[in-house]
Amino acid sequence: MSPSARFGSITDVDGVRVGHAQRSRGRWRTGTTVVTVPRGATPGVSVRGGGPGTRETDALAPGTLVTTIHAVCLTGGSAYGLAAADGVVAWLERCGLGVQVSPPDEQPDARWVVPVVPAAVVFDLGRGGGFECRPTAAFGERAARSATGGRVLVGSVGAGTGAVAGGLQGGVGTAGQTVRCGDHDVTVGALAVVNSSGSVIDTGTGLPFEPGAGATRLRRPPGSERTALRLALTARTSPPLNTTIGVVATSARLSKAEASKLADIAHDGIARAVRPAHTLFDGDTVFALALGDHELDATQDGPSPDDERSDAGNAGNPGEGFRRPVGRPQALHQLFAAAVDCFALACTDAVVSATATGHEPAYRDLCPSVLTPRRPTASVSH
Amino acid sequence: MSPSARFGSITDVDGVRVGHAQRSRGRWRTGTTVVTVPRGATPGVSVRGGGPGTRETDALAPGTLVTTIHAVCLTGGSAYGLAAADGVVAWLERCGLGVQVSPPDEQPDARWVVPVVPAAVVFDLGRGGGFECRPTAAFGERAARSATGGRVLVGSVGAGTGAVAGGLQGGVGTAGQTVRCGDHDVTVGALAVVNSSGSVIDTGTGLPFEPGAGATRLRRPPGSERTALRLALTARTSPPLNTTIGVVATSARLSKAEASKLADIAHDGIARAVRPAHTLFDGDTVFALALGDHELDATQDGPSPDDERSDAGNAGNPGEGFRRPVGRPQALHQLFAAAVDCFALACTDAVVSATATGHEPAYRDLCPSVLTPRRPTASVSH
Repeated sequence: MSPSARFGSITDVDGVRVGHAQRSRGRWRTGTTVVTVPRGATPGVSVRGGGPGTRETDALAPGTLVTTIHAVCLTGGSAYGLAAADGVVAWLERCGLGVQVSPPDEQPDARWVVPVVPAAVVFDLGRGGGFECRPTAAFGERAARSATGGRVLVGSVGAGTGAVAGGLQGGVGTAGQTVRCGDHDVTVGALAVVNSSGSVIDTGTGLPFEPGAGATRLRRPPGSERTALRLALTARTSPPLNTTIGVVATSARLSKAEASKLADIAHDGIARAVRPAHTLFDGDTVFALALGDHELDATQDGPSPDDERSDAGNAGNPGEGFRRPVGRPQALHQLFAAAVDCFALACTDAVVSATATGHEPAYRDLCPSVLTPRRPTASVSH
Repeated sequence: MSPSARFGSITDVDGVRVGHAQRSRGRWRTGTTVVTVPRGATPGVSVRGGGPGTRETDALAPGTLVTTIHAVCLTGGSAYGLAAADGVVAWLERCGLGVQVSPPDEQPDARWVVPVVPAAVVFDLGRGGGFECRPTAAFGERAARSATGGRVLVGSVGAGTGAVAGGLQGGVGTAGQTVRCGDHDVTVGALAVVNSSGSVIDTGTGLPFEPGAGATRLRRPPGSERTALRLALTARTSPPLNTTIGVVATSARLSKAEASKLADIAHDGIARAVRPAHTLFDGDTVFALALGDHELDATQDGPSPDDERSDAGNAGNPGEGFRRPVGRPQALHQLFAAAVDCFALACTDAVVSATATGHEPAYRDLCPSVLTPRRPTASVSH
C-alpha cells in the first residue's frame, strides 16, 4: 500500500463534489452537507445506529432496481431535516440527473428523471436555541448547487454546524488516499459528520483515538490543556440523540453488493475513532459511492495448486489447503481496509477541525498546542 | 376464527384514522393517503419490492430506539412524493406527537417532539399529463389533518388517484375483521394502494384472484364484459415503475419484531391478489401498526407432556414429539393469517372500487354486472 493524496479529502476521488449550506446566527445552528457525483455512482448503505433517521436507503439494497445515484444528503434537523433532501431532488431534476423514465407517446422528447437521493440526519435540534430552526429543502438545494471538487471545507460547516462530539464541538471531516489494490491504484475518500455522544479525543493523552498518519505531527498537549480538556469532557451532558453519518467514495468499479459491504466496513472506522458509537441513541449511517473509474483485478480465483507450490510461503506444506487471497478478492480487501482508515481519519478530522459555534468548546481552542490547521477550516458566511 | 367487521376497513381497529388529499383536474392525477394513530402504535415494516422509494424505514427495524409512531404516509409522486411526509411531520409536531426529546435547562416547559413518519411512494408521474404535478408537503399535511375513523373512502382517492393496476384503474382499498386469537378477540385491518404492473383481475373468469368472503356476492361477468376486460388487460403497457404499498394494523399488543413479521407476512396478501408482484419494477412496501389494546395469550410454552397425553389427538403417540402450537405463538399465528387475508382483500378492494381518472378503464365500468358498491367510493373534491 502506498498512500498518496491530493487534498486528503473525499474529493481525491475524481468526480466527487461537496457542498455545504448552514445557518448559525441568532437562534440557528444547523446545516446540510451534500455529496454529489454528477457522473453517477454505484451506491451502498449501512445503517448501524440504534436511532437512525433516513430516506431512500431501501432503494440501495443489493438486488434492487436503482444502480446509479447522483447525490447523498447529510443534514442536521433530525427527522425534520429530511426535508433538505427534497431540495437536492429538485436540483438534480433541473440537472437532468436521476433514474430515467419513459415519457408517454405524446411527449417523446421529454427527458424525465426521478432522482433518488439517499439521506441521513444528525440530531442538532435546539442547539442554537430555536427548536424550530431546521434545514429545509432550500438548504439541500443550496448545498447541492454549491458543491465543488478540490479542497473540502471542514469543521463547523454544513451538517456539522450544530454538531457536538462527546462534549466538544463536532463537525464535518474528510480524508482521502490512493492505495495499491491488486494491480491498480485506487482512490478512496471519506466524509464524516460527527455528532456523537462518544468522544473522539482520549482524555488520558489529550489526543485523538485515531490520529492516523498525522500522529507524527501531533504533540501531546501540556498538563494545563489536558486539564481543560478533561473538564470539558466530564461536564458533557449526553444529548438525547446523537449520530455519526457520512459517505465513503472510491474510484473503483464495484457491484451494489460490494458497495454495501464497503459502507458496512467503514463503520469500523467510526468504531475506532468515536468511543462509544453505534449505541441505541446514535443513528450512525454510512453511504458508499463507487464511481467505477478503475476496474479491480478481474481474477476471481486463486492460483492453481501448481502455482501455489511454487510460492515460497506455501511450498513446504501444499497439503494444508491454505489459499492466499489473490486477484479481485485481495484487491477488494485492500480497498476495504483503506476505507476503514479513511473513515476513522475523517471522524477525527471533524472534531480536530471544528470551531466553536455554541456552548461546547472546540478541541483546537482547548488544546491549541496540539496542531496547526492542515487545511482551510470553516470561514463561511452564515 | 369468527370474522366480524364494523366497517370492513382498517378503521375497524380502534384508534386508526385515514385521510386523503389529491388533485385530479388539469394536468394533475396524484395524491397522498395518510394513516394516523394519534394514541401511537408499535411499528414494523417490510420492503419486498425491487424499486422502493421510502423514508424512515430504518428507524422501524427491531432493536432500534423508536418504539412508537403516530402516522404513516403513502403517496404518489415517486421519489419526488417523499416531500409529502414533511407535511405529516409538520402536522404531528403541531399535535405534539412524536419522540419526546428534552428541552435544554433554560426552557424546561417546552414540549419538544420529533415525529418519525415512515413513508412509501407509488409511481404515478405524468399520469395526468404533468410530470411536474406531484404531491408536496401540503398534500401530506392536508391528508393527515383530515384523517378520521369510521368509513374509509376507497377507490381513486389519495395515493390511489393516479394508480394503475395491470392496465385498469388502480386505487386505495381496505379491509378489516375481528378474529379469535387464542383467548381474545383481536381486530386486524389493512389499507392498500395498488399501482401494480400485475393484475388483480383474472382474465379467465373476469373476477378478482382474491374475491374473499365477498365471492358469494360476485357473479361471473357475461361474455361481452369479459371480452372488454380482456382487451383492456391485453392493451396495457407496463409502466416503468409500479408499486403496491400499504398498512396493516391490529388492536393486538406486539413487539417491534412481531410487528415487522406482521408487515412481512402481509406481503403474502399482495402475492395472492396481485399477479405478478414484488418484481424489480415494484417498490412493494408494507407497514405494520400494533395499537396494543389487546394482549395476546401470555403463555409462551406448550402444555406439559402430561397435558399433552390427555390431548385426544396425541394420546396414542406421545413419543412423536409433536407439539400443537398453543398460547401466544398460536394467537400470533391466527393474527398473522388474518392479516394476510385482510391485505389480499384490501388489494382487491382497491381495484374493484376504483373509478376511472385517466386513460385506464375502471373494472366497475368494464364489468358493471359483477358488483354493486359495498361502501362509499370516491366522491371527493379534487
